[in-house]
Amino acid sequence: MSKKEVYYKDYLQLDKILGAQELESEKAGVEAHDEMLFIVIHQAYELWFKQVLYELDSIIALLSKPEINDNDQTLQIVVHRSRRIIEILRLLVDQINVMETMSSLDFLDFRDLLRPASGFQSIQWKELEAKLGLLYENRHGKEYYVSQLCPMDVDHVKDVEKKTNLLDLLNVWLERMPYFEHPEAWADGAKAKPEDHPFWAEYREKYTGGLLDIEQGNADLFDKTVFGKGEDDKRRLSAKACRSALFIYLYRGFPLLHLPYELMVSLVEIDELMASWRMRHVNMVFRMIGARVGTGNSTGHGYLKGAMDKHYIFNELTQLNGLLVPRRDLPELPKELEKLLGFRG
Amino acid sequence: MSKKEVYYKDYLQLDKILGAQELESEKAGVEAHDEMLFIVIHQAYELWFKQVLYELDSIIALLSKPEINDNDQTLQIVVHRSRRIIEILRLLVDQINVMETMSSLDFLDFRDLLRPASGFQSIQWKELEAKLGLLYENRHGKEYYVSQLCPMDVDHVKDVEKKTNLLDLLNVWLERMPYFEHPEAWADGAKAKPEDHPFWAEYREKYTGGLLDIEQGNADLFDKTVFGKGEDDKRRLSAKACRSALFIYLYRGFPLLHLPYELMVSLVEIDELMASWRMRHVNMVFRMIGARVGTGNSTGHGYLKGAMDKHYIFNELTQLNGLLVPRRDLPELPKELEKLLGFRG
Amino acid sequence: MSKKEVYYKDYLQLDKILGAQELESEKAGVEAHDEMLFIVIHQAYELWFKQVLYELDSIIALLSKPEINDNDQTLQIVVHRSRRIIEILRLLVDQINVMETMSSLDFLDFRDLLRPASGFQSIQWKELEAKLGLLYENRHGKEYYVSQLCPMDVDHVKDVEKKTNLLDLLNVWLERMPYFEHPEAWADGAKAKPEDHPFWAEYREKYTGGLLDIEQGNADLFDKTVFGKGEDDKRRLSAKACRSALFIYLYRGFPLLHLPYELMVSLVEIDELMASWRMRHVNMVFRMIGARVGTGNSTGHGYLKGAMDKHYIFNELTQLNGLLVPRRDLPELPKELEKLLGFRG
Amino acid sequence: MSKKEVYYKDYLQLDKILGAQELESEKAGVEAHDEMLFIVIHQAYELWFKQVLYELDSIIALLSKPEINDNDQTLQIVVHRSRRIIEILRLLVDQINVMETMSSLDFLDFRDLLRPASGFQSIQWKELEAKLGLLYENRHGKEYYVSQLCPMDVDHVKDVEKKTNLLDLLNVWLERMPYFEHPEAWADGAKAKPEDHPFWAEYREKYTGGLLDIEQGNADLFDKTVFGKGEDDKRRLSAKACRSALFIYLYRGFPLLHLPYELMVSLVEIDELMASWRMRHVNMVFRMIGARVGTGNSTGHGYLKGAMDKHYIFNELTQLNGLLVPRRDLPELPKELEKLLGFRG
Repeated sequence: MSKKEVYYKDYLQLDKILGAQELESEKAGVEAHDEMLFIVIHQAYELWFKQVLYELDSIIALLSKPEINDNDQTLQIVVHRSRRIIEILRLLVDQINVMETMSSLDFLDFRDLLRPASGFQSIQWKELEAKLGLLYENRHGKEYYVSQLCPMDVDHVKDVEKKTNLLDLLNVWLERMPYFEHPEAWADGAKAKPEDHPFWAEYREKYTGGLLDIEQGNADLFDKTVFGKGEDDKRRLSAKACRSALFIYLYRGFPLLHLPYELMVSLVEIDELMASWRMRHVNMVFRMIGARVGTGNSTGHGYLKGAMDKHYIFNELTQLNGLLVPRRDLPELPKELEKLLGFRG
Repeated sequence: MSKKEVYYKDYLQLDKILGAQELESEKAGVEAHDEMLFIVIHQAYELWFKQVLYELDSIIALLSKPEINDNDQTLQIVVHRSRRIIEILRLLVDQINVMETMSSLDFLDFRDLLRPASGFQSIQWKELEAKLGLLYENRHGKEYYVSQLCPMDVDHVKDVEKKTNLLDLLNVWLERMPYFEHPEAWADGAKAKPEDHPFWAEYREKYTGGLLDIEQGNADLFDKTVFGKGEDDKRRLSAKACRSALFIYLYRGFPLLHLPYELMVSLVEIDELMASWRMRHVNMVFRMIGARVGTGNSTGHGYLKGAMDKHYIFNELTQLNGLLVPRRDLPELPKELEKLLGFRG
Repeated sequence: MSKKEVYYKDYLQLDKILGAQELESEKAGVEAHDEMLFIVIHQAYELWFKQVLYELDSIIALLSKPEINDNDQTLQIVVHRSRRIIEILRLLVDQINVMETMSSLDFLDFRDLLRPASGFQSIQWKELEAKLGLLYENRHGKEYYVSQLCPMDVDHVKDVEKKTNLLDLLNVWLERMPYFEHPEAWADGAKAKPEDHPFWAEYREKYTGGLLDIEQGNADLFDKTVFGKGEDDKRRLSAKACRSALFIYLYRGFPLLHLPYELMVSLVEIDELMASWRMRHVNMVFRMIGARVGTGNSTGHGYLKGAMDKHYIFNELTQLNGLLVPRRDLPELPKELEKLLGFRG
Repeated sequence: MSKKEVYYKDYLQLDKILGAQELESEKAGVEAHDEMLFIVIHQAYELWFKQVLYELDSIIALLSKPEINDNDQTLQIVVHRSRRIIEILRLLVDQINVMETMSSLDFLDFRDLLRPASGFQSIQWKELEAKLGLLYENRHGKEYYVSQLCPMDVDHVKDVEKKTNLLDLLNVWLERMPYFEHPEAWADGAKAKPEDHPFWAEYREKYTGGLLDIEQGNADLFDKTVFGKGEDDKRRLSAKACRSALFIYLYRGFPLLHLPYELMVSLVEIDELMASWRMRHVNMVFRMIGARVGTGNSTGHGYLKGAMDKHYIFNELTQLNGLLVPRRDLPELPKELEKLLGFRG
């Protein structure tokens, strides 16, 4: 691998990175010290969004494989990269502290010069939401969204929205969990339908009063009308996937379920951190512009508040926590199944 | 000051502090490793709430003085202690990261043993909200609140709600700002009513199209029907106080206005941090119990979400940012007033 | 499980927790507002130290079992609790930000009243260091340490220092890794001594120039004189344990090695966070008292700086990173061994 | 101000920012997923260093004015921007958490491809140190420093080292504090030499046993042989500046001294945060490469440890805390002086 020597500033292309700050206020001959911060912090956000997308793309690629071999490193890597996304998002939430050193009056020094640009136009953030699983029809203010972006950017996000997203992959991956169908796994493994399986029967009857309720106590994890993804159904995880997820939550102590559990925990944490970011962002914008409209003619505050409530992506996973029973009450698994969930030893 | 030698563990009364963790699970003969964390983290929260209340009480006492002398340290101390509250609240928001290492299943190991106790029963948190200025009638779920606490605690909070709170003190303090009435301050200082003052006239006509709009562009900071605190008026800051606050935001560059400005900024930040804490708390509870009711039979999640939106206390200050004009367009102040806002030098 | 209803403030024993702040300044009739913060923050530290010790004790108990079954949850739990310790330590490092809102002059208001108490007298912190693996003879300033504590406390720490610590358990656990001895694991599994095994031979000759250097390139992971724990040897991990650790670092992609790897990473992070805490503490003390002696007649600053450099506990693990080779150059493992490192599948 | 519409991604020059990541591993046809993180995190650091330098330059410009008018906003702005630097540095310290998600083995995937580039070659960090006040002769490993950088970069840093730095400006600014010379300030204002002034006499004799000791109790803030900046004297703050700083620490309650005090506090905090960053950096490098040399043939770890201890810039300010006396023992100031330190009112 003989090659040229690498020098720090060339390697990092610092000429580009540090040469990309052009102040509109300077062009306009107006004094606006804080515009530099405004530019740099948004650039830092976009750099990190790129990194998050890079990790997310690799996760999507790994989980798109037709089969995931528990003995290769796929899940380890997926969990590791999810955790990296978490660390980055933690940083991005804290980064708002820096933005908040810019006061409303400081912002006014150059705010009018930026119209109609707006942080709302961050395509990478929308891409991130879409790749995680947010659908166009579930977006808050979707017409607004289309109206504020240039056509090329709208097309780009729409393309991304059509591609495989992590939530759908999660659904497929959970559905494919072989624990209930595996012939060796159950003493009476011949049963045709997993929902008739004594395990679930016991779980339902003994521990949850006959119902595996998700929201109001009258739905059943096996009721196809509820989890059947019918026309009106906005749920994204099928009943089958939910059963697997619940099983993983309950029996995560078994080696084979450890990483699947960690993955689900990580996805929920990513969701929460993005919600925290939106919330801090809402507050920051409100503080910055009071009740006025944003630079992009948006009522930024209103939009962001709407997005804050509606843009959770993995909350169906979180809801399942309402169906757990204490460890000490868990039905014991058949020995054959236990073996399958462990190391060769 | 001759006295006994002090020893670390006696001074800190560590026997009490470290001897106050009694696990219900242990009494019930049930294994529940994470109950210790549950106790310790809540105790740490309550310790810090005590400290925040201690600082807040001192701030309230300082601002309750009939007159605040700009040449003593009152405002310096008030701002300093507000900033300390901010640092503590930052910590308390981050502290939720530790709580989130307890999973829903871990919590189930001992959750039933705690009924009907609930984090909702933290009196100090309610006291904190009340002392900052949250009124009983503005609380989300107030009947619920009464039903969940023991009568002694309800009485205690109600008592606190009747006492002077920081928001009301802020209103009084802002109203008392002498800049507009001060005879020396204006060339035409004899004017009887501050709202007729040329400064505000200029500000309104030239910069905000005749209106000092707060919410929809049709209210006036001088319109008594809007800011008059009529029967139906839920606003807490009077028009007069709002004018002072706006003046401080705009002219904070003058030495005398520096600390008042810092104080307002700090209060808004305290509000935001408490909102962040509530929001992280909502998410944490949802993650912990899915859609189930909390240990105190609360639909904790629903309650918390309601509180999150309604419990902002200083947002009337934040709204004023919508009335700012760029520094470069600010009317110049009369020289006499400028002098009053500066050092003797 | 019928039982009395639990009420939040009783459950948390808030009477004890919130009633344990007695100000020396109040007793002495001196005004010292910040003494409350001083007490509360130290109490919060001690509460968290208790929690960290609680987690650490459980980890030590789990790793003290004569055998660790890879199919039970032992390592999962150990790693999970190590991560919780990490989250707590992150919080404790940030907590210093709150302390730093107390200025030197504020501290002087009550500093003399506390003599000779000193944060140095925190027994739980010393216990924590001892349980992780810090030996009496490796402590910075050990005579000083004995002179500053009451005899009961000295005895207590000395007792802890004699008990099993995590570093020694790590050594035992690593030595007991069965990968090299397992008869099925290697084609030529009959070899008597693992150090003659072709794997290590290949690793040494091909990738590290014949040497598995730890510090200066002239030691060998198989050289008993270096890793033999001779009389003068201050190393705490044996050569055998180091080989296992290195193997785990290199082949952590295999399912069976995932958690062992995560454990080692967590221990190193705990070490780093404790170092960060010491370092922030040093700076905080220096800022607080300049170059003066501490309340316990300590030259606190000097002591803390010494401890900062010497009290790393798991740095022998970190050093091993100097022996890694890139993944792409790693010798492939025998198929039989690979099987043993995977799931039954 | 009629002008073209601004679009987010053009304004931020995202084509440059997001197009500046070229992986050496890709060029070499080697798989190294984590190289992207390595590039992005360093670019984010450099972006933030640019911002810190931008704020620092503005601070230096403001403090370089021949006279600082207490009635304009100079000090307010200086303190505000120092606090922004603090928020940024806090972020940069936390950012290391993200870097630590890259393990040593992950780094090895591409480490050799980067030789001899090294984080050590960050010119902006060196510039920052130099602008704050670190002199070439006080740098740890200065020959090494010269040998590792390209001549252009060495020249650049040397140029910066020759220019006005913040520490020297601080010295000048403190020396120029007029409190002791001001004829109105003291009843016996006619005294020729400030060190003969009764205030200092009282302070010395009554409170510090005749000595204003800085390090070992035998130096005097008025002893010119100690603070005279003689040939061998490495101290950077003169005795006169130290007296002013001490006075500010002690009497910061007066309005005019509030911002000077805040400035000194901020500078010390910047110093501490940079030390924290170096320390976390040391640990991270050690964890990454064990005891091996860095990519730039540096023994990065050794270098960084040296820098960590030696590169404090404002510690002479911190030392002064050792000379404080409790507020209650402070000599009262002459009324005339008190007036000068307050508002016109």
